[in-house]
Amino acid sequence: MSADSVSSCPVPHVPKDTVLLGHGGGGRLMQQLLEGLILPAFRNPALDRRHDGAVVEFGGERVAFTTDSYVVHPLFFPGGDIGRLAVHGTLNDLAMCGAKPRYLSAGLIIEEGLPMADLGRIVESMRQAAAAAGVSLVTGDTKVVDRGKGDGLFINTAGLGVVPPGVDVGPDRLRAGDVIILNGDIGRHGMAIMAQREGLAFESTIVSDTADLSGLVAATVAAGVDMHCLRDCTRGGLGASLIELAETAGLHIRLREAAVPVVEPVRGACEILGLDPLYVANEGRCVLMVPPHEVAPALAAWRAHPEGRGACVIGEVGDPRRGGGGVTVESQIGTERLLDLFSGEQLPRIC
Amino acid sequence: MSADSVSSCPVPHVPKDTVLLGHGGGGRLMQQLLEGLILPAFRNPALDRRHDGAVVEFGGERVAFTTDSYVVHPLFFPGGDIGRLAVHGTLNDLAMCGAKPRYLSAGLIIEEGLPMADLGRIVESMRQAAAAAGVSLVTGDTKVVDRGKGDGLFINTAGLGVVPPGVDVGPDRLRAGDVIILNGDIGRHGMAIMAQREGLAFESTIVSDTADLSGLVAATVAAGVDMHCLRDCTRGGLGASLIELAETAGLHIRLREAAVPVVEPVRGACEILGLDPLYVANEGRCVLMVPPHEVAPALAAWRAHPEGRGACVIGEVGDPRRGGGGVTVESQIGTERLLDLFSGEQLPRIC
Repeated sequence: MSADSVSSCPVPHVPKDTVLLGHGGGGRLMQQLLEGLILPAFRNPALDRRHDGAVVEFGGERVAFTTDSYVVHPLFFPGGDIGRLAVHGTLNDLAMCGAKPRYLSAGLIIEEGLPMADLGRIVESMRQAAAAAGVSLVTGDTKVVDRGKGDGLFINTAGLGVVPPGVDVGPDRLRAGDVIILNGDIGRHGMAIMAQREGLAFESTIVSDTADLSGLVAATVAAGVDMHCLRDCTRGGLGASLIELAETAGLHIRLREAAVPVVEPVRGACEILGLDPLYVANEGRCVLMVPPHEVAPALAAWRAHPEGRGACVIGEVGDPRRGGGGVTVESQIGTERLLDLFSGEQLPRIC
Repeated sequence: MSADSVSSCPVPHVPKDTVLLGHGGGGRLMQQLLEGLILPAFRNPALDRRHDGAVVEFGGERVAFTTDSYVVHPLFFPGGDIGRLAVHGTLNDLAMCGAKPRYLSAGLIIEEGLPMADLGRIVESMRQAAAAAGVSLVTGDTKVVDRGKGDGLFINTAGLGVVPPGVDVGPDRLRAGDVIILNGDIGRHGMAIMAQREGLAFESTIVSDTADLSGLVAATVAAGVDMHCLRDCTRGGLGASLIELAETAGLHIRLREAAVPVVEPVRGACEILGLDPLYVANEGRCVLMVPPHEVAPALAAWRAHPEGRGACVIGEVGDPRRGGGGVTVESQIGTERLLDLFSGEQLPRIC
């Protein structure tokens, strides 16, 4: 596993005057770009909460609002395509706010020359994914850019959902003692894209885990579980998600590596490519943090749901021996290491 | 003026199997793409209303929701930049729903190699434009694509606004007899971009009209004017806006060309380039349709507002001699012609 070398690797000396691919990678460079240039311009309580979406109020209802652009390459991959991803990703960002998704927008930026049949397949994927989740795509926009000025298709989706009364989910609710639950094995989405892009053939095809997690969250709400925080493990993988949460909350997180499921084809592919599954992107995996007395009902609710069958406890929030906001990984053989954001991009353009 | 040749020009025989630049141009090709491929996948009442945004309900409040991607080239132009445009454009789409803008999202797709200073200037433009309108940018996303797979920067903004009680604005409220008011001279944005892009030097620099129109709409609401419909005159210009409205409402529109203000530098540049100002994009111009008894208060409200100083009556809805949903232009010398959507793209990537 390469996590040791990743975690001990300082941010390299990079030119500071242009944007690099790594600035979009979910790692330290991206954090620097956001915190140094973008977030300071727009300071407000919703943005400062550093969550997957903002929660605003209309008519006394709490409405989650979120956006994501999708630039995945290639457009089609085992288990999905950019359209399915663009719908699932935004549904999931709403779900991570505890919200029930209601409405989506879609903005397409098409490169001249995209086969109309590909566009048709992708739009149909979006339709199916939205219909399956019971949400309506209510507004959209289409732009076309010159050949060579895009990459087939980029999709932005924004979403609106309603946070049910009593639900309050966010990094500011994390408490020492909270238990971390993961909904299944990690690394499949990133490795599916990687294998497709590089033409790698492994023994068995790795299929992306892309999935709508809003039903899983709704089931947890229905079970009356007091969710403290939710976070999907997309760019930067489970590792980046936990590090961001620890830093935002200012609390230490302890992760037990042996408890994190990785299926054999993903583990094998990661070993061949020198990647750490902890940093590989997922599109249907999330972590839930709950107080100890909610672990049993949360696990029961998740394991009864198709997207939570593989649910397991993988760690805890708050190590009494440590202050601050880091993540410690307890390895399979009992040693400990500090997990750090990798500098730039482990796998570019996986979402 | 080239409108006659444009209006009599049938849709050329184009390859139907790939996306063309013209599919993004606000003309007939784009209409075909939307109606043939995209809209049928997502049919729902909000989308079918064919307005600048959807109006949905939360907690009994009517919330306008809209999105637009911005791919303007070049990123900086006289009077603005892509960031200012991306904020104004979405504010305006909300305003065209009669809504008071509240929240924005921003999704940046950055091409590797974009100078950090350019990104900083653009983010600062967005900040200023949002602050001036009193809206908060509450959620966002940043992606980076490889060099040669983008064009510097694309920005998507989505927006949320509240439709005040009693306000109901949309093509379905158009009635025969409604009077059409325009808020100022047309064609400046498109010609400013064109001159910048092509390095054309005219006698005086043409400055984009990009502006936030939400204050103008709020002033109209405050004046108690019963607005039937609003539409900004962006891609495809005033011509495309009126044609779309006429077709959506199934009502004829009559436009008096002599009443449409065009400043001399824009008229001159259009003549040199063989363009019709009616089809040139604006980013701070809109039309308002009101019943005849509301014309005087509407004009008074608009002329008292900085963005409506040039307000004038330019035509009427519903010609008793004609059925259906076309637009007739009465020329300066009294002749009439039918206005048609141009086929593809008069000026690509102006927004």
